[in-house]
This record gives sequence, structure tokens and C-alpha cells, in this order.
Amino acid sequence: MTLSELAEAANLPVATVKYYLREGLLPPGTPVTRTRADYGAGHLDRLRLVRALVDAAGLSIADARRIVAVVDDPPQRRSELLGIAHGALPSRHRDHEVSDEARRFVAGLGWTIDPDTPALHDLTGALEAARTAGIPVGTDQLTAMADGCATIAEADVDLALTSGDASDAVRVATAGTVLTDPIVAAMRRLAHQHVARRRLD
Amino acid sequence: MTLSELAEAANLPVATVKYYLREGLLPPGTPVTRTRADYGAGHLDRLRLVRALVDAAGLSIADARRIVAVVDDPPQRRSELLGIAHGALPSRHRDHEVSDEARRFVAGLGWTIDPDTPALHDLTGALEAARTAGIPVGTDQLTAMADGCATIAEADVDLALTSGDASDAVRVATAGTVLTDPIVAAMRRLAHQHVARRRLD
Repeated sequence: MTLSELAEAANLPVATVKYYLREGLLPPGTPVTRTRADYGAGHLDRLRLVRALVDAAGLSIADARRIVAVVDDPPQRRSELLGIAHGALPSRHRDHEVSDEARRFVAGLGWTIDPDTPALHDLTGALEAARTAGIPVGTDQLTAMADGCATIAEADVDLALTSGDASDAVRVATAGTVLTDPIVAAMRRLAHQHVARRRLD
Repeated sequence: MTLSELAEAANLPVATVKYYLREGLLPPGTPVTRTRADYGAGHLDRLRLVRALVDAAGLSIADARRIVAVVDDPPQRRSELLGIAHGALPSRHRDHEVSDEARRFVAGLGWTIDPDTPALHDLTGALEAARTAGIPVGTDQLTAMADGCATIAEADVDLALTSGDASDAVRVATAGTVLTDPIVAAMRRLAHQHVARRRLD
């Protein structure tokens, strides 16, 4: 299909598609004439993925590009897959030094974690932000979050490891994680209602 | 303290504090002279809360104002607390019609949920966004999310219900939820590593 057909199929303005092409978020089409290229179903899938990352997940263009890059060039060793996927995820507090509390807490769980993984920096920064705002997050709550997330992670890893080839697996481990965070957030609110109703009855 | 002392204590520009005052996010100080007012520790706490909502949690001024309003005028009946708190939380997909899948899924869990709660709209919208992007979220993953979030919610509700007066409880149930969503997200990524290492060993 032509660029304008591609834009129409993705329900996006032509200018947006051209912008994604310039920014390297969408690979070039197959040249047909000097000024025309042909785009296929893979381009449409990619466009929908990029759109969801930028729009639904609210990623910056740079963050979306990092995910697209690792999907296009996935690690060949399965054992490296998740570490590399995590390195490509946006991290809000990457420059925040990991606190002793965060390290001790994770060590206490018996989890084997890369000591410099972005999620440890993010855990530190997010804990500090909540407490500065007067929300007293304690060990009980952190332990419940770790237990709950371990349950969720079993299904997440299943989905990533059974998702076709290495590129699919990385796509699920990166885009799949940021795009399902809002599902987890919605489910947490539903669970609040369920638990509160039961307690107050 | 004066307005500039308050701004300094909160590490914010005076203009930002004035803006929050104008927007109703910070209550006025006690008038001292015609042009000067006095601000107390409560103002500083409020400023830190608003700052975290806008900055760390990324809420709009309108969304932050909705949370501050319910903290300042909390429901007096404990049974109404969480419903009202949830109504004050930002909802991305509030206008999205709740899908049959979302209703059936929650009913299947045996959870009693307000049929029009924003979280059901958000669940529908987030599921649709993930799938449109090519992430195949199925019942297994949703069930794991529900189980994991139920574990997390027990601790969340504990914290809200043991947090002093009604205003504190609403603050924890609203601001506490949006400010700890990033902690849950970081913990989920750490759990991914833990589970993947164990499976691949």
C-alpha cells in the first residue's frame, strides 16, 4: 500500500506517519518509483505498536525508539532476553542512586536481581516520592507488592517465553509490560473495592 | 512563615506556590497585614502532596484538584470512603463503554464492584489499547493480575483504614494509590527478573 493508504489504515494523519519514518520508528517502505514506496502489513503492525507506546503508554519518541530498536534486533540468547528488554524500558529515576533499603528489601526476598537494573533505581525514586508526599509506605506494603507482583510476573514471563520468535518475545517483554501497566493499575483499584467491601460488611 | 519562606521550605519557585494558591490547590494563609499572610506546617505538607501529584505522578492540575478537594472534605461514613476516593482518581478511559469481557471477568472473580466505577472503564480501555498494539492479553494473564492485585490491595486497604482520621484515610486511598503505582510497576519488573532467572536456570 502507499504511504497515504498506510496512514488511513492506521487512522493516523500522513504527517504523523512521515514523522515516525524520519524518527526511525517505522522502517522505510520498498521503493517503487523515485518518489513512491510500498508498505506492507508489517508496517501497519509497527505503526499500531508505536502509536500505542506514544499515545496509550505516554512514552517519549526517544523511549519508543529504544523499544523498537530492541524488537528489531533482539538478543539471540534466551537468558539475555529479559535483561536486555528491561534495559530498553523507560526509567524515570535511572540517575537516582539505589537506596540501601531497596537493596536490602530485594535481597530479603531471596530474589536474584541485576544490582544496577533500572527497576531498582525506579523503586528507590518512587518510594522517596511517595514518602515525601506524606504517604507512609512500609515494609508490609512493600512485601504485599512483591508477593502480588511475583504472581503477575509468572503469567508475564509465560506470555513472553511462549510468544513465537525472539523478536516477539522482546516485544511482549517491553511493549507488553508498559502497555499492561495500566491494566494492573485498573485491577488494583477494582481489588481495593472488593477488599474494602468484604472488610466493611 | 511567609509565602517566600514557604516556597523555600518546599524547594519551589514563589511563582509556582502562587499558581497553586490561585488554582485552589493550596488553601490561603492567615491574613497578617493587607498584603501578607502567614503559612503553617499544614501548608508545607499540602504543597509537598500537590507537588508529588503533579510532578511524580504526572497528574493534571484539574486531577490534582479533585484529589485535594476530597481530602479536604472527606466522606464521614467509612463505607463510602473508598468509592468516593476512587471517583476522585484520574481515569483515562472514563468515557469508554465498559466491555462485556471486563464485566464478565470481574463477575467471574466473585468480586462485588460498582458497575460504573472508573476502574472498569479503564480496564476496558487499557485492554483494547494493548491488544490493538499486538499484545495478546488473555484470561490467564488477567487472572494472575487479579490474584496479584488482591494481595496488594489487602495491604493498601490496611494502610488506608489505619491512617488516622477520615481525611488521612482518603489521602492514602487517593494520593497513596497514584503515588505507589510506580512502586508496583518497579516491583513487577524486579519480579520479572526473579521469575525469568528461576525458569531459565
